[in-house]
Amino acid sequence: MGRTPGSPANREAILSAAKTYFERHGYEGSTIRGIADAAGVDPALLYHYFGSKDQLLVAALQLPVNPRDVVPELLAGGLDGIGERLLRRLLGVWGRDWAAGGPMIGLIRASATHDEAARLAREFFSREVMGRVAESLDMPQPRLRAALVGSQLMGLAMARFVIKLEPIASADPELLIACYAPTIQRYLTGPLPSDDRPLPPTRIGKGGHQ
Amino acid sequence: MGRTPGSPANREAILSAAKTYFERHGYEGSTIRGIADAAGVDPALLYHYFGSKDQLLVAALQLPVNPRDVVPELLAGGLDGIGERLLRRLLGVWGRDWAAGGPMIGLIRASATHDEAARLAREFFSREVMGRVAESLDMPQPRLRAALVGSQLMGLAMARFVIKLEPIASADPELLIACYAPTIQRYLTGPLPSDDRPLPPTRIGKGGHQ
Repeated sequence: MGRTPGSPANREAILSAAKTYFERHGYEGSTIRGIADAAGVDPALLYHYFGSKDQLLVAALQLPVNPRDVVPELLAGGLDGIGERLLRRLLGVWGRDWAAGGPMIGLIRASATHDEAARLAREFFSREVMGRVAESLDMPQPRLRAALVGSQLMGLAMARFVIKLEPIASADPELLIACYAPTIQRYLTGPLPSDDRPLPPTRIGKGGHQ
Repeated sequence: MGRTPGSPANREAILSAAKTYFERHGYEGSTIRGIADAAGVDPALLYHYFGSKDQLLVAALQLPVNPRDVVPELLAGGLDGIGERLLRRLLGVWGRDWAAGGPMIGLIRASATHDEAARLAREFFSREVMGRVAESLDMPQPRLRAALVGSQLMGLAMARFVIKLEPIASADPELLIACYAPTIQRYLTGPLPSDDRPLPPTRIGKGGHQ
C-alpha cells in the first residue's frame, strides 16, 4: 500500500484495506492500529484522516450517513414527532444512496448472505446506533427500542429496494412516512412490554398503541 | 427425469426441476404444464400430486406454510387480535423452520442477492398472500396493508435470524409478540393514509419514486 498519504489513490487503497479488515475482524475486533498495519500506513495518519473507527467504517463502506451525526440530530429535535423526522431523513438519504448505487442496500444484501457482513452490521449497529440511542434517549429499554426501529427500517428497505414489493416499491415517500411514522414513534416512545415482567395473557385489540 | 411417479426419488427430481423452473420464469411466468415438460412428466401427474401451482411452489421451496391455508384461517378468527394471532402462528412456524434448516430464511437470503429469487418472492407474495388478503380482508387498501405487514415481518426475520441483532435475536417469542402485535394490528385494521388522497404538500426532495 502507498506511503504518500495525500494522494487520492492512496486514500482508496487505505479504504479498501480497511473494508477487508472490518469484514474479516468485525467491528468490535477491529482497531485503527490493526487497520493501519494492514494498510501499511501510520495509525496517526488514519486518525488524522478519519478521526475515529466509526468514521473510518462509514468511509470504507461508503455509508450515506454516520449514526454519530444522525442520532443526536434527531434526538435534539425532541421526542415529539421523532418517528416522522427519522423516516423523512432516511428516505431522503436512501433515495440519494439508491441513485448512487446503493452502498446501504449493498450492506443489507451482503448481510443477508455473508456471516461476516452480518456480524459487521450487527456490531456496528449495536455499538454506534443502539449505544448512542441508549445514551441519549430518555426512555426505558433504549436498546430494545433501537432494535425494533432497526427491524422495521430494514424490512422497509428490503420491500422497497430489494424485493421491490408493490405498492411499497413505487409509493410516494410521503405515503410511506405516513404509514410507518406511528410505528417508529411507538417503538421509540410508546409503552413496551418488559422482558422481566411477563405480560398478562391478552389479546391486543384493534389498533392498540401506535 | 423419472417416469415412475410413485417413487420418492422421482418426486424429488420433479421438485428440483420445479424449483429451477420457478426461479428461471418467476411465479407468474410458470405453469404446471411448463414445469411438467421440464421435468419430463405428464401435467396430470403434477395436478394429482400437488393440486395447484401454489402448492407445487410451497413443496419445491419447502416453505413451512402455504398462505392458502394460513390467510383464511387467520381471517376466520375475526379482525380482533389478528395481529397477535398472526405473530404467534408465524413465530411458531419460524422456530420449527429455523430448527429444520430454515428454507423460509433461505428464501429471504436468496431474495436479497438474486434478482430471480426476489422476483419469485415478490410474485408469489403478491399473488398468493396479497391476493388472498385483498379477497377476504374487509378493509380499504388491502394490498398496501399486506405489504406493510410483509415489510415488518421480513425485517423481524432479518433481525432475529439473519443479522442476529440483540435483544431481538434471543428474545422470548412472547416479548416479540407483545412488541410487534400492535404494529401488525394497525397495518391490518387501523386507519391508513390513502394513495389517492394526496397528503399535504411537503418536501421530501430527493428520493422520489424508486
